[in-house]
Amino acid sequence: MQGRRTIRSYKKEPIDEESLQRILDAATLPPTGADLLPYTVIVVRDSGRKSRIRQGAEEVEMRYHDSLTGRLKERFNSMGVSPVKPFLTDAPILLIVAGDKSKPYWQESTWLAIAYMILAIENEGLGSVTYTPPDTGFLSELLRLPDNLQPQVVLPIGFAAEQIPPKSSRPQGRIYLEEFTD
Amino acid sequence: MQGRRTIRSYKKEPIDEESLQRILDAATLPPTGADLLPYTVIVVRDSGRKSRIRQGAEEVEMRYHDSLTGRLKERFNSMGVSPVKPFLTDAPILLIVAGDKSKPYWQESTWLAIAYMILAIENEGLGSVTYTPPDTGFLSELLRLPDNLQPQVVLPIGFAAEQIPPKSSRPQGRIYLEEFTD
Repeated sequence: MQGRRTIRSYKKEPIDEESLQRILDAATLPPTGADLLPYTVIVVRDSGRKSRIRQGAEEVEMRYHDSLTGRLKERFNSMGVSPVKPFLTDAPILLIVAGDKSKPYWQESTWLAIAYMILAIENEGLGSVTYTPPDTGFLSELLRLPDNLQPQVVLPIGFAAEQIPPKSSRPQGRIYLEEFTD
Repeated sequence: MQGRRTIRSYKKEPIDEESLQRILDAATLPPTGADLLPYTVIVVRDSGRKSRIRQGAEEVEMRYHDSLTGRLKERFNSMGVSPVKPFLTDAPILLIVAGDKSKPYWQESTWLAIAYMILAIENEGLGSVTYTPPDTGFLSELLRLPDNLQPQVVLPIGFAAEQIPPKSSRPQGRIYLEEFTD
């Protein structure tokens, strides 16, 4: 948890099949609503498909960034977040995780599974970025998802081509004892 | 991840302060929307407050269970889930995690933090249950939460008073390559 950093730059080096399997296995282990594992993972390796995903993502990102104003815009600028997403074609594998809206606590459960996956990715010595496109219609179309499956995240995975120092634990400003106080 | 099981029965044995601190630290480490950590944790130890939380939870659970029908009702019965929640008073500490609805990707981020916390709890040799009351108004009132903070989970933590064998990895039925197929 301490060592994991968001990686946006990847080597072309392929991923061991056993590493991938352990990452996919991790998604089956969190507690989920009524124990139903309400999500699906699509593993994308094909370079043509990755290109189409990148193109779709950059189109929705351009529109989203144009619509931004104020503090959030400044925040993204200061974080170096841009509408250009090279990691979607550079990473050897994209994992798209889609939640099943027909199941109870589908979104909560899906994000527990995503956390398990990003920690399993770190454990394999690989990097990822928790990429949430501002609109996911293009993904549903490209991956032929049925209406009940709502894309939640694209996790590119691969060996990091950048080094980012581990973050220190962050300020504890939002912990309260017994009840909320101003 | 493999060893963690949902624990519904707790010893009264108190929790080491350093363990608690490491669990709270874990909540600061996941990637979150615009790096804003859009959640708050309330640490409840007071037995009167725990009793009021249990009472509120059991009231909403009774109404929820009465409203259930069909497969979900059968599923909960077969899982042994009932409206009675002794773990809310037995566990020495309850952690209530509330998401800040005013922040981008607040629910996704909050559930990443919850996953980190439940794994940190396991790492301390403690147990928890990811308890999501069907209605959380009673929590907002008892914890005096402002309107922007939406309770997402109650995590009782404590030493397990039951032994549950580790689960084996589950079936991989919902992994697809390249695109969804029927």
